[in-house]
Amino acid sequence: MNINKFVMPEVIFGNDAIHLVGESCFRLGAKRPLIVSDFGVSDVGWLEIVIQSCQKAGLHSAIYYDITTNPKDYEVEAGQKIYLEHECDSIIGVGGGSAIDTAKAIAIVVTNGGTIQDYEGVDEIDEPLPPLVMVATTAGSGSEVSQFSVIVDSTRKKKMTIVSKSLVPDIAIIDPQTLTTKSPQLTASTGLDVLTHAIEAYVSIASTALTDVQAKNAISLVANYLRPSVASSLNTEAKHHMAMASLQAGLAFSNAILGAVHAMSHAIGGRFPLLHGEVNSVLLPHVMEFNFLAVPKKFMTIAELCGENIRNMTEVEAGRKAIHFVKQLSLDIGVPQRLSDMGLDDEMIAEMSQIALDDACMITNPRDITVTDVQHLFKQAL
Amino acid sequence: MNINKFVMPEVIFGNDAIHLVGESCFRLGAKRPLIVSDFGVSDVGWLEIVIQSCQKAGLHSAIYYDITTNPKDYEVEAGQKIYLEHECDSIIGVGGGSAIDTAKAIAIVVTNGGTIQDYEGVDEIDEPLPPLVMVATTAGSGSEVSQFSVIVDSTRKKKMTIVSKSLVPDIAIIDPQTLTTKSPQLTASTGLDVLTHAIEAYVSIASTALTDVQAKNAISLVANYLRPSVASSLNTEAKHHMAMASLQAGLAFSNAILGAVHAMSHAIGGRFPLLHGEVNSVLLPHVMEFNFLAVPKKFMTIAELCGENIRNMTEVEAGRKAIHFVKQLSLDIGVPQRLSDMGLDDEMIAEMSQIALDDACMITNPRDITVTDVQHLFKQAL
Repeated sequence: MNINKFVMPEVIFGNDAIHLVGESCFRLGAKRPLIVSDFGVSDVGWLEIVIQSCQKAGLHSAIYYDITTNPKDYEVEAGQKIYLEHECDSIIGVGGGSAIDTAKAIAIVVTNGGTIQDYEGVDEIDEPLPPLVMVATTAGSGSEVSQFSVIVDSTRKKKMTIVSKSLVPDIAIIDPQTLTTKSPQLTASTGLDVLTHAIEAYVSIASTALTDVQAKNAISLVANYLRPSVASSLNTEAKHHMAMASLQAGLAFSNAILGAVHAMSHAIGGRFPLLHGEVNSVLLPHVMEFNFLAVPKKFMTIAELCGENIRNMTEVEAGRKAIHFVKQLSLDIGVPQRLSDMGLDDEMIAEMSQIALDDACMITNPRDITVTDVQHLFKQAL
Repeated sequence: MNINKFVMPEVIFGNDAIHLVGESCFRLGAKRPLIVSDFGVSDVGWLEIVIQSCQKAGLHSAIYYDITTNPKDYEVEAGQKIYLEHECDSIIGVGGGSAIDTAKAIAIVVTNGGTIQDYEGVDEIDEPLPPLVMVATTAGSGSEVSQFSVIVDSTRKKKMTIVSKSLVPDIAIIDPQTLTTKSPQLTASTGLDVLTHAIEAYVSIASTALTDVQAKNAISLVANYLRPSVASSLNTEAKHHMAMASLQAGLAFSNAILGAVHAMSHAIGGRFPLLHGEVNSVLLPHVMEFNFLAVPKKFMTIAELCGENIRNMTEVEAGRKAIHFVKQLSLDIGVPQRLSDMGLDDEMIAEMSQIALDDACMITNPRDITVTDVQHLFKQAL
């Protein structure tokens, strides 16, 4: 049976959409949300707007925003405690992937019990989660629409990937205005994360016609709007399109899953406090070189979507242009080019390669891959 | 505030997907579904498969399939009675728009009380509906994913349009194999209904980036696969793509709403027992001629998606090619070309024009329209 499945939350997208968070939560029958966020989001004022919106809707909210990049199991536990102490009945996540993934993880343990480790892998969640409203403020993770949550096991120093339809929030709110407060560095790295999502979803062996339309549109939007979005915090047109690209890439990878870039980047993120988007952006062109021969035709389409001139080229020549485009974009927007620039060395490669190979995202990579291949890719990216 | 909203059910798409209906309903916590279908679907055996799938999942189902084309208020009432008598807790719709719209309407009255008339218009439903699983067997209506239900008020002889997010089913199951039992006539008219959904959604004033990707892909699929699908009941590739086109057009119009074709076709369908798809296919090119000057650029894109050669043409010349394409397609697949071929005459035009003007679908038509315009369009189509 070759069945395509597709699932997504209700989406509310547009400038000022963040003000609708309170009434959205209320509409789900919630009265006492736990708001999960982080310091960065709080500093620039978006958390305050969410709190006010909840007050206006008559909700009594508790707040937890002590969350780090690559969020940890003990942060989930701390959030769970606040949820139970305040007798919360719903969860609002506000931020990028870290805040939203933590919000989802808290939702799992408050209704399913145990520790977050119990739910690692695919379809391990039995009990329904409380109502979930997610407000995305980074145009990167796509977690606000996805069935994923990625949490670090602090003992094993390993990112746990949790996949379940239950993790698709009830409502996702995407307000492009929230992108205007991001630094150029964060805009660049999260933007390349979006491109990584879109490309990995598009070439995934689990891609379908439903995920392809989203992935392809996302690739084209990143190609057109990431450069100007990095260049100017005030370019609201570029922010709007990058927010849409993030959303569509999220819809694509949530349903088509990802590939070797994410599997390898999860292995790194479990050990080192590095930005997920930066690690992905370094790995992406190397993995594309490796995956190329599995799907040259799809690479040709990517090149075309990126505006590369492929006239009179063979499929193989045109496909390679996609890799060229990604390398040039990454240079133009000034993200790190090597893992060694980020402080990594070859000592960890053997161990991380095995962890990457075992990651859930590796299953949908379009080219067969061995531990030696992964080691080789890590070395190239150093 | 310019906010885009998008909502869709969980989708299960593929050959043999119909066998998943029982376990899908069970997964929603249901034990006693009411299965709503019609004689046509029963005759070709799909209803039996649904019943077996429910038995296999341990569900105790009641069955109601006494439904006509353009379903009536009293059919909703009859279904409500069966639901209550059998103490059902969920609803499964199996068929085209008639069965699925009736299934939704029954869902409204069993939890909200009153008669279906009480819910005409936008957002009139307060109480949550029972779990809804819809199995589409026509590749036409898109009702399996939409927030619409259209029911005839038998006293006023008028189609009531009911719009609410609550009407988006929990799970939509689309099995392209079910299309192999349709007659060429039904394949043709429902196929043009799909095209009408996609075009009206694409040019709607409520269209968004999220609906556009779906609408455009649907247009391109219809342009490529409707002819071969009409030509051969065994062309499974064409059926697959037409089922996907129907799904994507449904996602587009559910969120971008429709336009004058549907407003006028609802006015006709409230009075005459005609096939919705056939009426739409007659009206579509006339409404396109009328709407053209509102959105010439979008028409140009439609022409391009349909594979028309628009090289070296101005936007206006290229846009007109879209109308040309629709006329030619409609001739090729042999649908009626005039309303008079379907037994209508100009006696009813005045009254139907006012009803069409008041239809909820008219609000999103891209060109301003008066009752005189509608009369003129009806006359042209006679």
